[in-house]
Amino acid sequence: MIKRFRFGTPLPTESVVLDLPLCEEAVPFLQGTPACFTYLLGEDDLVFGLGESIRGINKRGWHYVSFCSDDPNHTEDKTSLYGAHNFLLVDGAAGRFGLFWDYAGRVEFDVGYTRRDLLQITPADENYDLYVITGESDVEIVRAFRGLIGKSYIPPKWAFGYGQSRWSYPTEADVRAVARGHRENGIPLDSIYLDIDYMKDYRDFTVDPEKFPDLQALAAELAQDHIHLVPIIDAGVKIEPGDPTYESGKAGGYFCKNAQGEDFVGAVWPGLVHFPDFFQKEARRWFGERYQTLVDQGIEGFWNDMNEPAIFYTPGRLRAVLDELSACQSIDLNLDQFFALKDKLLGLSNNLEDYRSIYHQVEGQMVCHEQVHNLYGANMTRAAGETFEALYPDHRMLFFSRASCIGAHRYGGIWYGDNQSWWSHLAMNLKMLPSANMCGFLFSGADLGGFGSSATEDLLLRWLQLGVFTPLMRNHCAMGNRAQEAYQFSEAPAMAKILGIRYGLLPYLYSEFVKAALADDMLFRPMHFDYPDDPHAAQVEDQLMLGEGLMIAPVLEQNATGRYVYLPEPMKLIRMRSTDDYDQEVLPAGHHYVPVGLRELIFFIRPGCVVPLTQAAMSVEEIDSEHLTLLHFVEQGTGSYVLYDDDGYTRDYQAPDHYRTLTVSV
Amino acid sequence: MIKRFRFGTPLPTESVVLDLPLCEEAVPFLQGTPACFTYLLGEDDLVFGLGESIRGINKRGWHYVSFCSDDPNHTEDKTSLYGAHNFLLVDGAAGRFGLFWDYAGRVEFDVGYTRRDLLQITPADENYDLYVITGESDVEIVRAFRGLIGKSYIPPKWAFGYGQSRWSYPTEADVRAVARGHRENGIPLDSIYLDIDYMKDYRDFTVDPEKFPDLQALAAELAQDHIHLVPIIDAGVKIEPGDPTYESGKAGGYFCKNAQGEDFVGAVWPGLVHFPDFFQKEARRWFGERYQTLVDQGIEGFWNDMNEPAIFYTPGRLRAVLDELSACQSIDLNLDQFFALKDKLLGLSNNLEDYRSIYHQVEGQMVCHEQVHNLYGANMTRAAGETFEALYPDHRMLFFSRASCIGAHRYGGIWYGDNQSWWSHLAMNLKMLPSANMCGFLFSGADLGGFGSSATEDLLLRWLQLGVFTPLMRNHCAMGNRAQEAYQFSEAPAMAKILGIRYGLLPYLYSEFVKAALADDMLFRPMHFDYPDDPHAAQVEDQLMLGEGLMIAPVLEQNATGRYVYLPEPMKLIRMRSTDDYDQEVLPAGHHYVPVGLRELIFFIRPGCVVPLTQAAMSVEEIDSEHLTLLHFVEQGTGSYVLYDDDGYTRDYQAPDHYRTLTVSV
Repeated sequence: MIKRFRFGTPLPTESVVLDLPLCEEAVPFLQGTPACFTYLLGEDDLVFGLGESIRGINKRGWHYVSFCSDDPNHTEDKTSLYGAHNFLLVDGAAGRFGLFWDYAGRVEFDVGYTRRDLLQITPADENYDLYVITGESDVEIVRAFRGLIGKSYIPPKWAFGYGQSRWSYPTEADVRAVARGHRENGIPLDSIYLDIDYMKDYRDFTVDPEKFPDLQALAAELAQDHIHLVPIIDAGVKIEPGDPTYESGKAGGYFCKNAQGEDFVGAVWPGLVHFPDFFQKEARRWFGERYQTLVDQGIEGFWNDMNEPAIFYTPGRLRAVLDELSACQSIDLNLDQFFALKDKLLGLSNNLEDYRSIYHQVEGQMVCHEQVHNLYGANMTRAAGETFEALYPDHRMLFFSRASCIGAHRYGGIWYGDNQSWWSHLAMNLKMLPSANMCGFLFSGADLGGFGSSATEDLLLRWLQLGVFTPLMRNHCAMGNRAQEAYQFSEAPAMAKILGIRYGLLPYLYSEFVKAALADDMLFRPMHFDYPDDPHAAQVEDQLMLGEGLMIAPVLEQNATGRYVYLPEPMKLIRMRSTDDYDQEVLPAGHHYVPVGLRELIFFIRPGCVVPLTQAAMSVEEIDSEHLTLLHFVEQGTGSYVLYDDDGYTRDYQAPDHYRTLTVSV
Repeated sequence: MIKRFRFGTPLPTESVVLDLPLCEEAVPFLQGTPACFTYLLGEDDLVFGLGESIRGINKRGWHYVSFCSDDPNHTEDKTSLYGAHNFLLVDGAAGRFGLFWDYAGRVEFDVGYTRRDLLQITPADENYDLYVITGESDVEIVRAFRGLIGKSYIPPKWAFGYGQSRWSYPTEADVRAVARGHRENGIPLDSIYLDIDYMKDYRDFTVDPEKFPDLQALAAELAQDHIHLVPIIDAGVKIEPGDPTYESGKAGGYFCKNAQGEDFVGAVWPGLVHFPDFFQKEARRWFGERYQTLVDQGIEGFWNDMNEPAIFYTPGRLRAVLDELSACQSIDLNLDQFFALKDKLLGLSNNLEDYRSIYHQVEGQMVCHEQVHNLYGANMTRAAGETFEALYPDHRMLFFSRASCIGAHRYGGIWYGDNQSWWSHLAMNLKMLPSANMCGFLFSGADLGGFGSSATEDLLLRWLQLGVFTPLMRNHCAMGNRAQEAYQFSEAPAMAKILGIRYGLLPYLYSEFVKAALADDMLFRPMHFDYPDDPHAAQVEDQLMLGEGLMIAPVLEQNATGRYVYLPEPMKLIRMRSTDDYDQEVLPAGHHYVPVGLRELIFFIRPGCVVPLTQAAMSVEEIDSEHLTLLHFVEQGTGSYVLYDDDGYTRDYQAPDHYRTLTVSV
């Protein structure tokens, strides 16, 4: 049951797809006013949700701010990451309900931070729709919410293969070396990502003719090996007379404005840029069609970046700081001035005052960016998503984005932004998966091995063991850090085998993904969702239910050769070194310490469940989905699994021949 | 067995107290040359040591740099913290040995970072003594090493009480409010720390007459309540004609020089300062005697800070950056220039080139700071420690320091520097304890609740539950964050009870501390040290052996109401809510999930052991050490514990009446 409440005069967000009637009654469960609703939490109440955010699966004990932020240092004290996902699920003694703030400005969620027993939500203004969702279970509430916000994006099947990325592979030769490095070492690979340096002067939709003299030929050559090139697209369009994107954007009036009605100017990688005003339908269409220049060269997937939007500085603010510095020249700088000066310089980036000076055209009305900040990146993904859906109704493209908001899950996936090569970020990766799923983002994942900082090979190996299960499985690494391609490490053979397991499980993973997307279900669920009556299941923060039949419990600690696992019911442990080298063992319900060697991954099969496994492959294209081994935990009688499969591109998910039943009899 | 090897012409460090003969043979175990020694690690070899550093108790899987660093952001990718502790212990299939680089310059320890199986140690130059220590066990090797470096510092007994700190309590009224806040809420307290704002213009050994008009009266007033004031002393001496410390330092020639032989100038909190040249014996004496001005006002303890030394900037380098900025005014700043400018400003602090331009007088010789960097803070603590030991041979004073080096453990304790209110830093606190103990630093601890960022009350409560066991038990919090005194939270009653447990266990904790210091033993030991033949014990990174009879296993995760515990042998679980409210339960050897409510702490008693417990008290002075309850895990026959106690001030640790045997018969 979903109840919709309206406060003030909300701006349109298009985050939901159902047009529900407005309720006039008091908002159930909550106290307070639209300016700040509160709810008293019982000692054992659980709070889930908030999509891409730090801390636990149970969000209690911190405060979170929905405000898409370009900040790569995801330490425990941060409140905002790149996404803004205003869905909460309270599961407690006095009530079980979901809450969705359909609002694109800043919202603070204090989940027992100020007071351990108080949930307190404070939006920046009082013009929004609030949805209250009730149901018989957490799973049902999420399903109802997902029905409200619309079907999740499904990428082409090849996008479930392993991808390798780096900031940057600056030339064709580097890209070829990466392809070769994988193939020569027997390491599967489906995609190579191009970070900003493939462009000419960081201009969107250009290719540097010196570094990539023939992108089309390169794409065709790699395609022979079933490897896809996935270029980055940044939000800012370089101010460069003669540049086709700049000129056409200018001509169409498609850029964001400042308060004076001029095109807003900020600095990002290309230097000075204008930002497309993705709030205009025509601007979205214009920008969406710009991708065609790369599609024409054989590109079938893109990642959208810097779309919070990130702004390094604005010329006016920089000038003011430099002028102030200049004045320091004539006086003896004291300590306060020194720190003030440092703060001013550091405060130039992603400055709130700058955001306040951007204006969008929202249905003909000029709207200050601050009011709709969280929709900017979402509308960028939508630009490509809806354009391509219109142009190619029967051919899926890969899109995923850094910034996002609920609603964007219909047009593309997300990655969890610029994380670090930290063991704690491996754990955070796991915890974000079910939270993102609740908010509709099924196609998601973190940069495996960590983007910033340098990864050790044990960290990468353990991270790949989680990555085996995440829909987006991309290894990405920032400039200045140790090279992070699997073949760079002495453990490359073990990594190749672990990656092989991804391909071996891909029939199951793809099937479960598509089924979850079609049914508005979660692919990854907290243990509590499946075992609501088991008090210990609510405590588990390092295991996840995956689809119908699996539970995953990766090793998340350095130097650990095992881990504790909690089983709410008996399960079959699979300890796998490669698709053809694994052990199986039935474990009773309860607490277990499970040895897991560095080169092993474990997962568990639930009672009665069947999980198909095929041989490792070098690419998704090469997966043999006919000759399946059926892993199962069927001790007597019959167990079955309905496997979904398709050609990987078309959108006719309901076709009966895409479903077949696999049966085990014991 | 200790072997000493000399390479080149080492500068004196005075880190060791034994003058061992030099060995001429090849260095055992290691390959390579003094420029870089290596050792091939077996798959299951363990590496311990490195004192105050990040990551695990087992140091494998990262690289660490001994270079005392002022950096409060202790994320997993960092390599240096405030201390530099060059002791490693390798416990492996092919050998068990300790290594100590007696060297005060930069040393890199690559413990399986570059290659998982390679230990690689690279000092900045080849002039140092290397000690190789062998023994029958890890415990014996550490004991031998500790014998080499000399007895650990023992503070007065009151310093084991709970302390409250804040950057800052700026006035007498604030200090009184803190004392009252504790006493009125029944929260124990033995000390209140004064951060930099008690000083006049941040000048060492001054007291601001407006904010603290009568420090002596304040100290006396608090002393009535058994509360001690502990002021901070910073390394830099403000350049302020007329200031007694400045004038006497200048007159004595006690400041560090630059390459031109002038007094070196840097900027820290007071603005421009000179740094005392603690390498000169006379300068140490001079600076040590300066503390007397505060001792005369009733102060009995100090913390030494900013002694890496931290340098915000040097005037010359700042001027150069400002000049460069000024030049930017006339040109259109491009992105590269923008980032370069930011980097230059950020790079002003703790700049390596600045360190290279400081000179010390080491035994009459001018020595570049870079060569002896890690001794700077150590010699600052030594300045006070050795002066007071000379002036008051029979009265212990409290000293602890931020920067440190092995050798300083004889003169004072350390705290683990500016940590953060992160759950991961609670775990890091636990892991550092045994590592610091190996290196001689028994009196140590982290800022409970975390210094930077804001603590939630559950974090503070859980952190206090670890802090109950750490010799230094101080809650400290930085400016700009949520107030962190226990009485600020709704869980104050639970915190008061947890703190009461500290006082209840203090007879045991103090006894074990002094005995460990006298016997060159560790107070906190990794599980592996006590159970070397138990393969799982080597895996445990979140439990510690504490003295003779205890094992601790605090809860380190948010929202957790229990944790896994591994018992290598049967132990008695004590689950305590207060000194008079606890349960006891014998658990068999093996893996356990142990429920631990938010307001409970657990610890374990080993078989045959006796642990005295007394009632909670408001201060160490008020502890009743006569009426002891004997907690024990004696199932039949007799168990006993030799309790050490003294007046808390004198140094006659061997006096027979300080020892009494407590016996339990069943």
